[in-house]
Amino acid sequence: MPMDKRRDNRKKKSSSKGELSVIPLGGLGEIGKNLTVFRYDNDIIIVDCGLKFPEEDMLGIDFVIPDVQYLIENKDKILGIFITHGHEDHIGALPFILPRLDVPLYCSRLAAGMIANKMEDARTSYKPKYREVCPGDIIEAGAFSVEFIPVCHSIPDALALSIHTPMGMIVHTGDFKLDPTPIDGVGTDYSSFAALGKEGVMLMLSDSTNIEKDGITPSEKTVGQTFERLFRIHKDRRIVIATFSSNLHRSQQVINAAGRFNRKVVLAGRSMIKNVELAIDLGYINVPEGMIVTSQEADQMPGNRVVILTTGSQGEPFSGLVMMSRGTHRMVKLGPKDLVIISATPIPGNEKLVSHTVNRLFACGCEVIYERGEKIHVSGHAARDELTIMLSMIKPRYFVPVHGEYRHLVRHAQLAREMGVASKNVFVMQNGDVLKFKGKSNASVESRVQAGAVLVDGIALGEFEGGLLRERRELSENGIVAISITLDSKSRLTAPIQIQTKGSVFSTEDGSTFRELENAVKMGLDQYARTPGAKPETLPTEIRKRIRDVFGKVSRNYPVIVPLITFVE
Amino acid sequence: MPMDKRRDNRKKKSSSKGELSVIPLGGLGEIGKNLTVFRYDNDIIIVDCGLKFPEEDMLGIDFVIPDVQYLIENKDKILGIFITHGHEDHIGALPFILPRLDVPLYCSRLAAGMIANKMEDARTSYKPKYREVCPGDIIEAGAFSVEFIPVCHSIPDALALSIHTPMGMIVHTGDFKLDPTPIDGVGTDYSSFAALGKEGVMLMLSDSTNIEKDGITPSEKTVGQTFERLFRIHKDRRIVIATFSSNLHRSQQVINAAGRFNRKVVLAGRSMIKNVELAIDLGYINVPEGMIVTSQEADQMPGNRVVILTTGSQGEPFSGLVMMSRGTHRMVKLGPKDLVIISATPIPGNEKLVSHTVNRLFACGCEVIYERGEKIHVSGHAARDELTIMLSMIKPRYFVPVHGEYRHLVRHAQLAREMGVASKNVFVMQNGDVLKFKGKSNASVESRVQAGAVLVDGIALGEFEGGLLRERRELSENGIVAISITLDSKSRLTAPIQIQTKGSVFSTEDGSTFRELENAVKMGLDQYARTPGAKPETLPTEIRKRIRDVFGKVSRNYPVIVPLITFVE
Repeated sequence: MPMDKRRDNRKKKSSSKGELSVIPLGGLGEIGKNLTVFRYDNDIIIVDCGLKFPEEDMLGIDFVIPDVQYLIENKDKILGIFITHGHEDHIGALPFILPRLDVPLYCSRLAAGMIANKMEDARTSYKPKYREVCPGDIIEAGAFSVEFIPVCHSIPDALALSIHTPMGMIVHTGDFKLDPTPIDGVGTDYSSFAALGKEGVMLMLSDSTNIEKDGITPSEKTVGQTFERLFRIHKDRRIVIATFSSNLHRSQQVINAAGRFNRKVVLAGRSMIKNVELAIDLGYINVPEGMIVTSQEADQMPGNRVVILTTGSQGEPFSGLVMMSRGTHRMVKLGPKDLVIISATPIPGNEKLVSHTVNRLFACGCEVIYERGEKIHVSGHAARDELTIMLSMIKPRYFVPVHGEYRHLVRHAQLAREMGVASKNVFVMQNGDVLKFKGKSNASVESRVQAGAVLVDGIALGEFEGGLLRERRELSENGIVAISITLDSKSRLTAPIQIQTKGSVFSTEDGSTFRELENAVKMGLDQYARTPGAKPETLPTEIRKRIRDVFGKVSRNYPVIVPLITFVE
Repeated sequence: MPMDKRRDNRKKKSSSKGELSVIPLGGLGEIGKNLTVFRYDNDIIIVDCGLKFPEEDMLGIDFVIPDVQYLIENKDKILGIFITHGHEDHIGALPFILPRLDVPLYCSRLAAGMIANKMEDARTSYKPKYREVCPGDIIEAGAFSVEFIPVCHSIPDALALSIHTPMGMIVHTGDFKLDPTPIDGVGTDYSSFAALGKEGVMLMLSDSTNIEKDGITPSEKTVGQTFERLFRIHKDRRIVIATFSSNLHRSQQVINAAGRFNRKVVLAGRSMIKNVELAIDLGYINVPEGMIVTSQEADQMPGNRVVILTTGSQGEPFSGLVMMSRGTHRMVKLGPKDLVIISATPIPGNEKLVSHTVNRLFACGCEVIYERGEKIHVSGHAARDELTIMLSMIKPRYFVPVHGEYRHLVRHAQLAREMGVASKNVFVMQNGDVLKFKGKSNASVESRVQAGAVLVDGIALGEFEGGLLRERRELSENGIVAISITLDSKSRLTAPIQIQTKGSVFSTEDGSTFRELENAVKMGLDQYARTPGAKPETLPTEIRKRIRDVFGKVSRNYPVIVPLITFVE
């Protein structure tokens, strides 16, 4: 695919009188759904387009994507979406948003492959306009000139961006860490960042995910050393390793350890198979001939010649490891001769899912290595000292912490001030805030654009936040009583009352409960009939009151009560 | 109250031919609802009677207590309940279970006070038969002779038990740690444990909660040092400290630090006020005259002369700190001049609640100290090295790990084996398992009694596990559509169809959705009418199918569909 390589031509006229705006539409005050907009007059570029997994109280919601009303309204100005790497929180919203914007998509080859898989899963017929890029490539997009800088992360081909604008230079770190001994040899490109810092960076946006972690995130290589240690100790066991399917460095290390200890590798779990196969196709991982075998082939081999590489490190209900722990996996049955390594730490919110999985694995009789102290996982994000180093290399005039909950942004902002960024030049922004530069030294947040969360339930999209979720919460806590009453024109019962309960502490499956609820309805009807001039609209209230009395005897909470009243001639 | 102090008389005839059974009814394979039964022939004693907080998928459930059917059936044999300490997971089920057993309750004075508060909250008229005990007391209860041994924990007056039986000695550690510098000077009583070990212990049951933590749990005193450091740095701020209200050692240290830095203490949060007042009344904490002030008094003082001690360290929705973070607390409004210290770590499952609270606190503008590295909290449970020390002191012949999820029990069992307990003498038990001793060296788990979880929803009790929760989960994920249809004897519609949705992706509040659903119902009715000999029982299925088709267009999931069909003459 064609690339725009025009490095010489890169310096923008800085005499421009335009306005530069930086508008995060996602990823601030939250982990996930990263999307940042850069606008210079009538030119817009977008960085990332991710999803977020739902909060626990978002009942029945599959995931959450950014509200992009601002982009829809300014569609004609958008020159492209620039993807930093292929994780869900950076690409996951594309199937929903890209078809509506229909703009070029600049991304690495690996990210393009992952996006293509996602588009397929989402069953959209839209064909993205991929523009594959390599580190060092420079893309001219209107007033912007975007260069891609390699960074280390928990997926290959992660890229930071330096964005030349007529107002000055912007650096967006994307997700990164400073792994000094990266698996694929592609380290975070200090020299580019240092050169940018020397040249002068107006604004830096930096990953805040791990600001709470002191020190430096250990190298991915340390996990490989742990694998070697564990493979050596557990020579006689079959080994199952669960990790993130997109962490191809980790998969590479599993394959390396398997090779060294004369084992074969079985892939299990849909996304693991998909991502490893994609990575092999594109040359991102290096697999000796015959190393990967099918589970049928593995079944013919002694267990201690096999490693099973699978999904489920977060306890996801239908993942490989979880099905194995439940004894419902089609291919793999676990027992006392197995060692399971969970090569991950629980993402906040998944702690219980993971710990239930570990309990079930122990109940299968296998040995499980899952403790934090075991060095079986490293994060993909820079810890505090690395963020400090990055700030000291870039030395930005303005700083905006991104990719983090509010507390991460506050702590990262505090760090930037400690590192010498002027206090008034550090902005803890919220999604939708517009940071406007009227000049190199004149920036402020004065306005907002529409921003927020669009919840996705199945393939239905909606701003469900209000009614739907409130109703689901009520239903989930106390259940429902549905009542059908048929009355004649004089409001007399003309047919048996129908009542059905779902999820309430009393169930109509019990005959005496049915009769008690039926009596309550009848009392409500009597009261209504005895009230002179009572209007039919008041009848549901009357019935609700009586039903609540029944539940009030055993509980402080009431179910949702739905009276359906039919008048017949 | 009378005590049975007959230490000399304690050695039981060991010639007995009876059988000893140890039956955990709660606390194994879980954190919480601790309850263990010891039975020798027809004598039963019970240790602890706790509750557990519900799992996330137990929608609408307030808490969980042990199924005590076995105790109800053997009520006449029960000689008493022995309480190790006053935490919810050890006393919380008493209001539900104690009135049904009506047996003496042996507990420390502090635990008695806390139990009395609980009984009052639960609005039960039952008056427990308290038998207050002190460390060193020995209670004769049928075949058993129970001695109380002081241990350190995150509440004062925590007790381990040594239980003499005709078969041999049992030690139940309760919850403990080996804090070398306890706040109240009451350390874990090494000499008693060591003496028991020397004498010979047949069976040890030991707290497994922190087996995954390496090393030693730091002393509670270290938290006091942190308070001093923070009070010194933040001289100019008002300070808010949130912690567990039952951790009276922690409250004492807050009061001490306040005294040293010339501040007054305001109590906030219902359980904090209750527990601190109880502790003052009973002499468990030491508060200088005039140290505790009302919030009205504090409002008249400069903020930097005030410490607010409150609940909410777990992000509990209606706790003091959470209301402050939401700006809805009646007394305390937070701002940039406040420092909030969260002196706790999130209990597994509460991580998100806590992190949302921290985000909101930062949004109030205050500084917040919450990071694990800040040394603002220590656990109340022994870490791995302490468990090792306890095993080495007691040197039991048999070992049963208690108080832990399955993975904790497995790890603790592994440790006991490493410490020399014979592999066949280590039992990883489940609630309801009966560990039977037919002799000092003849123990096995061969049978089970009824055991499980009773879910409490409001004040309703029930074995809700099955239907109710499954229905609530369905409702919570996809909502409900209730439909009322009135037909004549020829199955013709005789009145308008009534439809109401709750929590579904389509809402009947939208007229066109109502018409679409109405049409679907009509199509179902048509299909039914056109099917020769169709039975009325098939009509709901026909309608469900059509409604599902409507939802299938936008979602892969369907709501619960409740057709209520009425036939009129």
